[in-house]
Amino acid sequence: MVVQEASSGQVLMLAWMDAEALRRTLATRRATYWSRSRQTYWVKGETSGHGQTVRQVRLDCDGDTVLLTVDQTGPACHSGAETCFDLHPPLWDEAAEPAVAR
Amino acid sequence: MVVQEASSGQVLMLAWMDAEALRRTLATRRATYWSRSRQTYWVKGETSGHGQTVRQVRLDCDGDTVLLTVDQTGPACHSGAETCFDLHPPLWDEAAEPAVAR
Repeated sequence: MVVQEASSGQVLMLAWMDAEALRRTLATRRATYWSRSRQTYWVKGETSGHGQTVRQVRLDCDGDTVLLTVDQTGPACHSGAETCFDLHPPLWDEAAEPAVAR
Repeated sequence: MVVQEASSGQVLMLAWMDAEALRRTLATRRATYWSRSRQTYWVKGETSGHGQTVRQVRLDCDGDTVLLTVDQTGPACHSGAETCFDLHPPLWDEAAEPAVAR
């Protein structure tokens, strides 16, 4: 599933949910994921304080992907970056291409 | 990987890429994915005309997830919905909750 910040529209991170993680997320409004490496549920921000309050939950067309819209407290990424896609410079960016005659 | 529309910030869809799909995407600037069910590469819009011109490519903190920023032509979803998360009503929406004293 994918997490998007409500106010900025930024894509914050991707994570895994199973049915129980989704149930917990809906029941508590605190984004709760399934850690495949640790084989356990984790509430985002439980240790870091950088939690996510859920504002909207959507399923995709074939019902196997969740889009969470959240209010993010603090940085979303464990690295301290604002989002998990902000830690590294873009792999490619149109805006950084040299301007050429088209 | 996740695909976001450049102008609106909407999350359009999730799909799968392997290294070759990413290479093709970067080489052509046309979003190209790996179909797990069909075990083949597919260029988004090749049959529907609803393609994605890539404007930016980002990797997440641990380098295993791609965020594509694209210009989407036509609806992103094969269902005809604008995005794959627009076909169904929200599973839960804060805005639709009855207003209660807090």
